[in-house]
Amino acid sequence: MKTAIIGGTLITQDPRTGVVDRGTVIIEDGTITQVLAEGSTVSADVNIDASGCAVIPGLINAHTHAAMTLFRGYADDLPLFAWLRERIWPVEARLTAEHVYHGTRLAIAEMLLSGITCFADMYFEMEAVAQAVRESGIRAVLSRGIIADSAESGMNEAVELFLKYHGKHRIQVMLGPHAPYTCPPDFLVEVGKEARRLGARVHIHLAETWAEIEEMKEKYGRRPAEILVDSGITQAGVLCAHCVHVDKEEIRRLAEAGAGIAMCPVSNAKLAAGFPPVSAWLDSGTGVGLGTDGAGSAGRLDLFDAMRAASSGEKLASMDPRKASAPELLAAATSGGARALGIDHLTGSISEGKLADLVVIDLNTPWTQPVHDPVSTVVYSATTENVKHVFVEGQQLVKDRMLTYADIDDIIGGVKRATRSLFVGR
Amino acid sequence: MKTAIIGGTLITQDPRTGVVDRGTVIIEDGTITQVLAEGSTVSADVNIDASGCAVIPGLINAHTHAAMTLFRGYADDLPLFAWLRERIWPVEARLTAEHVYHGTRLAIAEMLLSGITCFADMYFEMEAVAQAVRESGIRAVLSRGIIADSAESGMNEAVELFLKYHGKHRIQVMLGPHAPYTCPPDFLVEVGKEARRLGARVHIHLAETWAEIEEMKEKYGRRPAEILVDSGITQAGVLCAHCVHVDKEEIRRLAEAGAGIAMCPVSNAKLAAGFPPVSAWLDSGTGVGLGTDGAGSAGRLDLFDAMRAASSGEKLASMDPRKASAPELLAAATSGGARALGIDHLTGSISEGKLADLVVIDLNTPWTQPVHDPVSTVVYSATTENVKHVFVEGQQLVKDRMLTYADIDDIIGGVKRATRSLFVGR
Repeated sequence: MKTAIIGGTLITQDPRTGVVDRGTVIIEDGTITQVLAEGSTVSADVNIDASGCAVIPGLINAHTHAAMTLFRGYADDLPLFAWLRERIWPVEARLTAEHVYHGTRLAIAEMLLSGITCFADMYFEMEAVAQAVRESGIRAVLSRGIIADSAESGMNEAVELFLKYHGKHRIQVMLGPHAPYTCPPDFLVEVGKEARRLGARVHIHLAETWAEIEEMKEKYGRRPAEILVDSGITQAGVLCAHCVHVDKEEIRRLAEAGAGIAMCPVSNAKLAAGFPPVSAWLDSGTGVGLGTDGAGSAGRLDLFDAMRAASSGEKLASMDPRKASAPELLAAATSGGARALGIDHLTGSISEGKLADLVVIDLNTPWTQPVHDPVSTVVYSATTENVKHVFVEGQQLVKDRMLTYADIDDIIGGVKRATRSLFVGR
Repeated sequence: MKTAIIGGTLITQDPRTGVVDRGTVIIEDGTITQVLAEGSTVSADVNIDASGCAVIPGLINAHTHAAMTLFRGYADDLPLFAWLRERIWPVEARLTAEHVYHGTRLAIAEMLLSGITCFADMYFEMEAVAQAVRESGIRAVLSRGIIADSAESGMNEAVELFLKYHGKHRIQVMLGPHAPYTCPPDFLVEVGKEARRLGARVHIHLAETWAEIEEMKEKYGRRPAEILVDSGITQAGVLCAHCVHVDKEEIRRLAEAGAGIAMCPVSNAKLAAGFPPVSAWLDSGTGVGLGTDGAGSAGRLDLFDAMRAASSGEKLASMDPRKASAPELLAAATSGGARALGIDHLTGSISEGKLADLVVIDLNTPWTQPVHDPVSTVVYSATTENVKHVFVEGQQLVKDRMLTYADIDDIIGGVKRATRSLFVGR
C-alpha cells in the first residue's frame, strides 16, 4: 500500500533537504520512499491532505519511565529523596505486572497524542511494557532497570528481554543499570562486558543531582561520568539520562566516547535537581535528545514542554536569548534523540529510505497563527493539541487527534481500576 | 435564566469554601448565586454536566499586548533590544487600527480557548481593541500605552478611552505610562495626578531588564520601584508588569503601597531578561498575578505554561522543590490576578455574589489521569486542550472547545489578511 502525505511544510531534519514548502511524503511498506517538492504529481492508495500543516519526524522521548503515569500528581512539590523514599518507592513496591501494563498503556496513548513515536523506557515488569508497546504499534527502546542489590535476577530478566524482543516488533532492548549510585563501579564493568557480549547498548541515569556527584567522589574518588567511561560501558554504546552536573572535561569525554545524552529539563527543574548545560551538550557533537522523565516527576509526557523548557532555561542561564534556538531544540527532539538512542539509521528524519515515523501538525489554530517561521511556530507556539496525525513505521496510530489502535475510554478505565487497586484497595 | 454547572470538582479559590467534590455552581444574571455541595437538588434552565471535570475561576492574564499575536514567531531567538529595534518597532510603526483589531481578535480567541476570561492589555489603537473585546464578551482591563515623546496625544487618547469604556461592557480602563525608561519621573508624577483625578488605576512595565535598573540609577539616582512609589502613582492603584530585578526593599515598598504585580515568567525567560522572584512576590502579601506578555515574545498566550514556568523557575532558583507549589500558582493565575488588577470584588474566585467567570476543565484525558490531587493535575498536567467550557459573566463563550461567539476560520482568515498587508503587501 502506498500512502501520500500531501502539501505540508516538511521540516525534514535531513540536512540535504531542509524545509520543503508544500511538499509530499510517499510511504510504502512502512518506509519513506520519496520526499517530493511542490507540484509533483502523486498517485497513491491513501492520500492525506497536509496543507496548512507542518510535517515533522516523530518526536523521540529519549528517557522516561512510562508506567509512572500512575504516580502523576501523587507527590508534587516535594524534595527528590522525600518524593522517592516516602511516596514513590513504597507504592512501587506494590506494583504488579498488571499495574505496569495499564500505566504504560496510558503513557503510550499520551505520548502518541503528543507526537511522540518512540520512547526509551527504563522500568521493571518489562514484559508488560513490551505487551503495551506491541498492542499500540509505537516504537520503543526498553531497558529493565537493574540495581546491584538484586543484580542477578535483574540481569537475567534484562538478558531474557533482549533475546526475546531486540530488533522485533519495533522494539530495541538496552541493558539498564540504574545509576552509578545504585550500581558500584565493579558491577558496571560486569554490565559493560555483558552488553558487549550481547551486542546490546546500555541505558543509565547519570549526574542527575549534586548529591550523586558528592557521593561518588567520596566513595570512589571519581565523578559519575569518569566511572562510566572507565567501566567500558561506552564501548557498547550508551544512553545517559539527565547529565546535569557535568563539567567541561566530562562533556568532552562523554562526547568523545560517543555517549548518547537524554536531557530532561522539565523533570530536573520541577524536582530542583538542577538544569542541564543545554548548549554545551548541543555543541558537543554527540547525539543529544530530550526526555520527559516519568510523569510522576514531570507531570506530563510532552516534548513540546521539554523543547520550550530547554530553550528558556538555557537562555536564562546564559543570559543570551540567541542560545538554544528553535531549530536546535526541534533537532534534539527528533534526529538528536535518534542518534542518542543509536537508531538514527532507522528514524529521526524525513529521508528516503528511513522508516515512516511522522507527525502532521495542524497549524491552523489561533495559537499557531500567523506562521512567520514554521520551526519557530512548532517549537514555541504549537502544543500537543496541534498533533493531528501520527504514523509509526507507516501505520497511522493517531488520526484526526484520535487513537486508531484502541479506545481511549478503555485505556483510561484500565488506569482508574489499576490506581484504585494500587492506592486504595490494598 | 438560571444555569447549573453540576458535579465537578470546584476549586473555588475562596478560602471559606476551598475545594468542593462533586459540587454545583448556580449562575443567574451573570452572577454566581449558589455554590452547592454534593447531593444538593438543583433545578435550572440550563444544566451542564461537569462530572469528571474541575471547575476553576477564569484565568486572569495580568499583562499582555494582545495584538502582538501578529508578531508570533516573527523574531525569535534574538536579544531584547535587537528584537525590539530591528524587528518589532519597524513593523509596529506600520500597524493600523485594522491590524490591531484582527491581532486582538486572534488573541482573544486563543485566550478564551486556553481558559483566560480576563486580560490586562497595554497597546495602542485601543478603540479597535475595545471593539474586539465587546464582540467577544471577554473581560478586559485596557490601557493605552503612553511614552513621554508623544505624551499629549497618548494622554488624550487614554483619558478618552477611560471616559468612554471604564466600567462598561466588561471593560476597565487604566492609564498606561509605558515604563520608567520611556516616561521620566516628572511625567510619571503628572500621570499619577491625572489617574487620581479620574479615579483610574495605572498599568506600567517595571524592572524588566537589568539594563533598565542601571539606566534609572545613572539618570535619576533611583531604582525603578523607588521612582514609581515617589511619583504618587501607587496611591491611584497600580499594576506593575514584570518586576524581575527588584531587591527586598523594593518588594517591601511596592507591597506596602498595595501595588499589583504581573509576573511574566515565560516571556522573561525566552528574552533572557531574568526571572521574577516568584516566592518573594507570592509571600509579599500584595496582589500577585501571572501574565503571558505578548505572543511576539512569549509564543503563546497560555497561563498553564506560565504557572509551570513560574513554579519550575522558582524551584530551580531556590533549589527547593517545595517552593512555588501548585496551589500557590493556581491562586496567582486566578484570585491573585484579580487582586493585582483591582477587580477582586468582581471576579477571581467561585464565590456567591461574584460574577460568573468560570472554566470547566475536562480531566478525562490520558495526560490528566489518574487524578490524585485535582490542583496538582490542573497546574502540572492539564493543558489548554483540557479547557472544555468557558463562561464570562455567565455567558458561555467556549462550549465543548468551540467558540460560541464567532467562527474561528473567520478570525484566522482576518489575521492572515492582516499579516499579508503588514509584512508582504506594503
